[in-house]
Amino acid sequence: MPHFADTLSAAITAKGTPICVGLDPNMDAIPHCVRALFNNDEQGQAEAVSHFFAEIIDAVADLVPVVKPQIAFFEALGTPGMEAYRRVCAYASAAGLLVISDAKRNDIGSTAEAYAEAHLGEEAFPVNALTVTPFLGSDGILPFVKRCEKNDRGIFVLVKTSNPSSGEFQDLRLESGEPLYERIAASVAEWGKSTVGDCGFSSVGAVVGATYPAQAARLRELMPQQFFLVPGYGAQGAGAADVRPCFTADGRGAIVNSSRGILYAYQKSDYPEEEFAAAARDAVLKMKIDLASF
Amino acid sequence: MPHFADTLSAAITAKGTPICVGLDPNMDAIPHCVRALFNNDEQGQAEAVSHFFAEIIDAVADLVPVVKPQIAFFEALGTPGMEAYRRVCAYASAAGLLVISDAKRNDIGSTAEAYAEAHLGEEAFPVNALTVTPFLGSDGILPFVKRCEKNDRGIFVLVKTSNPSSGEFQDLRLESGEPLYERIAASVAEWGKSTVGDCGFSSVGAVVGATYPAQAARLRELMPQQFFLVPGYGAQGAGAADVRPCFTADGRGAIVNSSRGILYAYQKSDYPEEEFAAAARDAVLKMKIDLASF
Repeated sequence: MPHFADTLSAAITAKGTPICVGLDPNMDAIPHCVRALFNNDEQGQAEAVSHFFAEIIDAVADLVPVVKPQIAFFEALGTPGMEAYRRVCAYASAAGLLVISDAKRNDIGSTAEAYAEAHLGEEAFPVNALTVTPFLGSDGILPFVKRCEKNDRGIFVLVKTSNPSSGEFQDLRLESGEPLYERIAASVAEWGKSTVGDCGFSSVGAVVGATYPAQAARLRELMPQQFFLVPGYGAQGAGAADVRPCFTADGRGAIVNSSRGILYAYQKSDYPEEEFAAAARDAVLKMKIDLASF
Repeated sequence: MPHFADTLSAAITAKGTPICVGLDPNMDAIPHCVRALFNNDEQGQAEAVSHFFAEIIDAVADLVPVVKPQIAFFEALGTPGMEAYRRVCAYASAAGLLVISDAKRNDIGSTAEAYAEAHLGEEAFPVNALTVTPFLGSDGILPFVKRCEKNDRGIFVLVKTSNPSSGEFQDLRLESGEPLYERIAASVAEWGKSTVGDCGFSSVGAVVGATYPAQAARLRELMPQQFFLVPGYGAQGAGAADVRPCFTADGRGAIVNSSRGILYAYQKSDYPEEEFAAAARDAVLKMKIDLASF
């Protein structure tokens, strides 16, 4: 059976870039020319989202290894939104892309198993990997790890997030001297040991924000076998130099996400609205050059 | 406009008990007599879940103020499951029950707003309140709080959960001397200040497990204005004496959840399987007496 980390590693090599395109369907930013094709109710908006992402995926599928749909925006469109989410994930898979669902699910025991079944199973909303939040401890993570061991799926555990307030709890210094995120990193390294592939990385990865490069360097030391999923590049302010510490010395082990900077590139370019997909492709090509520059 | 904490407070008084019935649709435990009515595919299982909960709700609606559907089990049934989730929530509302979605959602900025729109809005999956995970700090909570201020909705922030491994991160002692959960409690108290109702409680509540009564007593001091949503009673091992510290001195400010102990009471009683709803009603009546005993 293919192994998630090995598949991801091979896909990055094949495409020659670690770019992950975040699929965040913010209705206000989806071009008018797409929205005008559909009704403005839940069903119509969900169809507009599917249509928009199909064009984006067509435009970037030969360039990048991974897409990361943000499920919250689909949930906000009710069951038609969840159907659109399933369609978009299937469309991306059919285009040869790996799909990481950014769902930040977290619960315990049989409930965590239900989430694992929902997202890492074969039936409900199948994707290649899922982001998960570690607040509940091992009870909330091991059911997902078990799924990674049994099939070809992966998880990315939130360790140090990219947002301004991420330090409120994650950076709190413990009695033992280290900040909380380092303690979590040690747990992630441990949880990942049973799923290390031929590539040397585990199917249990970590989310580490590009906006805190000093912390990322330390986390790279603490989690040598983890793939880092790196948000914060582009619209959130981080550049190529900031993501560098997320990679290993030989430039492996991380994927760098950009969402708005690619999807809605047409808003900040000379492209007319109708050519939003070409603008997105252009933004990916620029990001590829930028990331290759460090 | 009605205020969530005031509505919850009034509902507890009206029903004379703080019981919350957790709606966790574990397919294996749903009676054969219900499952036999439907196909065994996603669609049929989702219909079986709707049917089962409609009977449970009919049996307990006059006794309890609140139900708490666990969304993970519905997600595991795909879009038919999400449609069943919407139906079950609407059915409970129509029966006069408050609905707290146990979704433990967490994200930042516009994504948190999308989750708030999904669950605390009017359209997608509307409920009265939502559980949320605080790992991302204020960025991940304030978009939900804003929604609580603007309409009649509420949230319950995870502070100290009931599971065995909850201490792995939540109990870590900080350099400042207190455990992490106390620091989170202080933030929850602060986040809740803008939504305190006439009843004296805030629409921003806290999840505090009954399985750790000593910690619950301390958390009651730190969060005098928070409603506690208390898991862990019954199947998870806590009894009436254990939940007592979650209440204020005058016996207010908490709701006590039981899921499996009520839903699947037929498995541990003299009732035949076909009378699962009567068995559930009986379990609620017993729990009501038990909780009134302290």
